[in-house]
Amino acid sequence: MSDRLRPSVRIPAAAAELLREVRRTPPLTQCITNTVVAGFTANVLLATGAAPAMVGIVGESGIFAGIADALLVNLGTPPPEQRAAMSEAVRGANAAGTPWVLDPVAIGALPVRTTLAAELVAQHPTAVRGNASEILALAGTGAGGRGVDAVDAPEAAMEAARTIAARWGSVVAVSGATDLITDGERVIRIANGDPLLTRVTGGGCALGAVMAAFLGAARATGADAMTAVAAATLVYTVAAERAAKVAAGPGSFAVAFIDALAAVETDDLLRDARIEEDAR
Amino acid sequence: MSDRLRPSVRIPAAAAELLREVRRTPPLTQCITNTVVAGFTANVLLATGAAPAMVGIVGESGIFAGIADALLVNLGTPPPEQRAAMSEAVRGANAAGTPWVLDPVAIGALPVRTTLAAELVAQHPTAVRGNASEILALAGTGAGGRGVDAVDAPEAAMEAARTIAARWGSVVAVSGATDLITDGERVIRIANGDPLLTRVTGGGCALGAVMAAFLGAARATGADAMTAVAAATLVYTVAAERAAKVAAGPGSFAVAFIDALAAVETDDLLRDARIEEDAR
Amino acid sequence: MSDRLRPSVRIPAAAAELLREVRRTPPLTQCITNTVVAGFTANVLLATGAAPAMVGIVGESGIFAGIADALLVNLGTPPPEQRAAMSEAVRGANAAGTPWVLDPVAIGALPVRTTLAAELVAQHPTAVRGNASEILALAGTGAGGRGVDAVDAPEAAMEAARTIAARWGSVVAVSGATDLITDGERVIRIANGDPLLTRVTGGGCALGAVMAAFLGAARATGADAMTAVAAATLVYTVAAERAAKVAAGPGSFAVAFIDALAAVETDDLLRDARIEEDAR
Repeated sequence: MSDRLRPSVRIPAAAAELLREVRRTPPLTQCITNTVVAGFTANVLLATGAAPAMVGIVGESGIFAGIADALLVNLGTPPPEQRAAMSEAVRGANAAGTPWVLDPVAIGALPVRTTLAAELVAQHPTAVRGNASEILALAGTGAGGRGVDAVDAPEAAMEAARTIAARWGSVVAVSGATDLITDGERVIRIANGDPLLTRVTGGGCALGAVMAAFLGAARATGADAMTAVAAATLVYTVAAERAAKVAAGPGSFAVAFIDALAAVETDDLLRDARIEEDAR
Repeated sequence: MSDRLRPSVRIPAAAAELLREVRRTPPLTQCITNTVVAGFTANVLLATGAAPAMVGIVGESGIFAGIADALLVNLGTPPPEQRAAMSEAVRGANAAGTPWVLDPVAIGALPVRTTLAAELVAQHPTAVRGNASEILALAGTGAGGRGVDAVDAPEAAMEAARTIAARWGSVVAVSGATDLITDGERVIRIANGDPLLTRVTGGGCALGAVMAAFLGAARATGADAMTAVAAATLVYTVAAERAAKVAAGPGSFAVAFIDALAAVETDDLLRDARIEEDAR
Repeated sequence: MSDRLRPSVRIPAAAAELLREVRRTPPLTQCITNTVVAGFTANVLLATGAAPAMVGIVGESGIFAGIADALLVNLGTPPPEQRAAMSEAVRGANAAGTPWVLDPVAIGALPVRTTLAAELVAQHPTAVRGNASEILALAGTGAGGRGVDAVDAPEAAMEAARTIAARWGSVVAVSGATDLITDGERVIRIANGDPLLTRVTGGGCALGAVMAAFLGAARATGADAMTAVAAATLVYTVAAERAAKVAAGPGSFAVAFIDALAAVETDDLLRDARIEEDAR
C-alpha cells in the first residue's frame, strides 16, 4: 500500500476546521470507559474543547446515547453492570444515529471482554480504535496482547483492520508509533506523536474519546468518519509532540499534554502534520 | 434580593478559623462519589488538610458514616451497589448526627439518578451543592442539564434553591461564575473563582467534598452550616484564583490548584474575598 | 531489635539490579485496586518501568493471574464483583506461582474488608503491605485506623508484622515515616521518603503495586522476596525525596514524583539510601 500514499494537506485543514467546531459547540461526548483512565479521559476531552459525560449505568446509558453527540465504549475493566450499560448505550446510539467508537482494550487472551467485543463490533461502530494486537484479535487473526501493550507493530494489523472495516462498515484506527486508519479501502498514515504517550495510563484510551468528540463535530462540518478519526489523531499527536518538548518525564508530560490540547491551533496542525493518504 | 446584600467581613474570618480547624483536626470526610473524580476529590481534601475516606460499599458505608466527621454523597455515576451504599450511609449519618452533603450530578433528564436524588434530598441533607440546572431539576422546576454543565445561570436557580432549602432544612449552594448560597431566608454571594475550574473534571464535585469537610470542622468551631458552606466555597475559589495566575492551561491549573489549596492562608482569604451577604 | 541492625549496602545494590530488570522486561503487573488510586497506581508502575494491567473482573482475573508476572490485591473500596475477582485472582496466582501482594486498606473497624483480608492472608500472599494500624488489625491485635491514615507508628506494629509473617510465610512491610520490613525473623528498616507522600492519594497504595512489580522481576534476578520488597520501597522513597526537593505543594509533588520514578538511577540509590538490616 505504502507506495500509493502521498502527503496530505486535506486532513490537516479538515482537522483545524473540526477542532474549531469542537471548541464552538462543544459536542457532548458520552464515555463508558474503565475506572483507571476515566478522570484522564474527561480532562483530555475538556482540554480539547469537548463536553465529557461519563454516563454508564443501566437505565440511563441508552437514553443518554440518544441525547449525546457521540459515544465511546471502552472495554478496559468492564464489570457486569457496565457491560449491560454498554450494550444499552450502543442500542440507543444506533437508534438515534449517534456516532460511536469501540475500543476493544486487551481483548484476545481475556474471554469476557473478547466475547463482548465480538458482540459490539457486530453492532457496526462508526469507528474502532485499538493497538495492533487488539485489532488482530478483533479480526480473529491474532492471539491478542498481554494487557494494553501491543506486541505487534501497526503494519502487522493492516489486513486485520481492512477486514474489520469491510465487514462492519467501521473506520478502523490502529494506534502505534505510526497510526494507521482505514475504511477498508482507503488508508491514512500519521507519523506524529511521542513515546511518552505510552508512559501515561490512558494515553491510548483517551484518544478513542477524542475520536468520538470529532465524530460528533463532523455532523456539523460534513466531514466523513474517516477524516474525523484522522483529524482527532492528528490533533492528539501534534499536542503530544508539543508537550514532549517541555516535559521532564511522564508526570510532567501528562500535565503539559493537557495544556497542549487546549492550546493547539490551526498553524500547529498545518506545520507539524506528518500525514499521508491514498493518492487516488 | 441583591440590593440587601453587603460585603461580608464575617465570612472570610470564619473561613480562616474553619480552615485552621480542618488542618488541625483533620475531619475524617467520607466520600461516596463517582469514579471519574474520586482521585482528584481525595487529593483536594488532602491538600485542604482534611482526611478523605472513600468508603462506599454496602455493609460498611453506614457504619463508617457514624465514625466519620462528615459525608459527601455525589451521584456522578452510581451503579446499583453504590446507590444502596449511599442510602445506607445517609441513614448512618442521620442516626449519628454526621453532617452530609448531597451533590445531585446531572439529574433531570437521567431517570435513575433523578429518582435517587429525590429520595436522598428527602432525608434532609445538611447541604446540597449543584449547578443551576441541577438545582432547578431537584426543585422540580427545570429539565436539568446535558451532563455536568449547567445550561442555566446561578441567579436563575435562586427561587429553586430557596424552595429546596425551606422544604428540607438544607443549605443550598448553586455553583457558577458567582456562587449563591441560601438557607431559604438568608443569601450569600461569592464572586471568587476562575473559569479554569470548569475545565478540570471534578472541579465542581470536589467542592462538595470540601463543603463536607468544613461542615465536619464546624462542629468544633460552632459555625452554622451556611457559614461553613460559604467558607468552603471561599477557600476553594480563592485557591483557584491563585492557581490560575501561574497556570499555562487546564493541566497545569489542576496541579497548581492542589498546591494552592495547601498554601492558602488567612491573609489570602481576607484580602481576596469578594463575598456579600444579607445586611440584616 | 534495633541494636542488631547495621547499614546495608547489599540492598541498594540489589535495588539497582532489580530496577534495571523491571525496566528491561518489563514485568506485567496485574492490579486489582480501588478506583480512587487506580490511575495513579498505573502511572507509578509505568514510570518505574513496569507494565500495569488493571484486570479485575470475574472470569478474567484468575486467568490473567496465571499470565501476569505479579499481582496486587488492594482492598481500598471493594464492591462484591471485585471481591469475587480478588479471590479468583489469588487462586490463579497461587496455582501458577505468581507472586502477589496484599494491601489490607483500612481494615479493622470496617467489617466487609476485614473479613476479606483475613480470608486472603490465609492464602499466603508473597508480601503484605500496610500502615501500622492495618498490620495490627490484620494480626488481630489492634482496632484498625480511621480510614487509610495510621494512628499507630510503624514500630508499634513490629510484633504484629512478625506474627503475620511467621504464620503465613509472607514478607510484611509496615509503611510509615520509617518503613519496616520483616519475614518473621530478619528486619529491614528504611528511613527514606517524604511526608508529602502522605498528602497524595495512593501514595501508599501505589507502593504495593511497585512491590509486586519488583517481586515479578526478582524471579529473573534470583533476589528473595524480602530483598525485592525492600528494593521497591527504596526506589519509591528515594524518588519521593528527589521529588520533594522541587515540589511547591502536594500537586506538583505528585507530578515530580512520577518524573523522579522514571529518572532514578543506580547512583541515586547507592548515595541516598538510609537503610539498615540485621547484622547476622
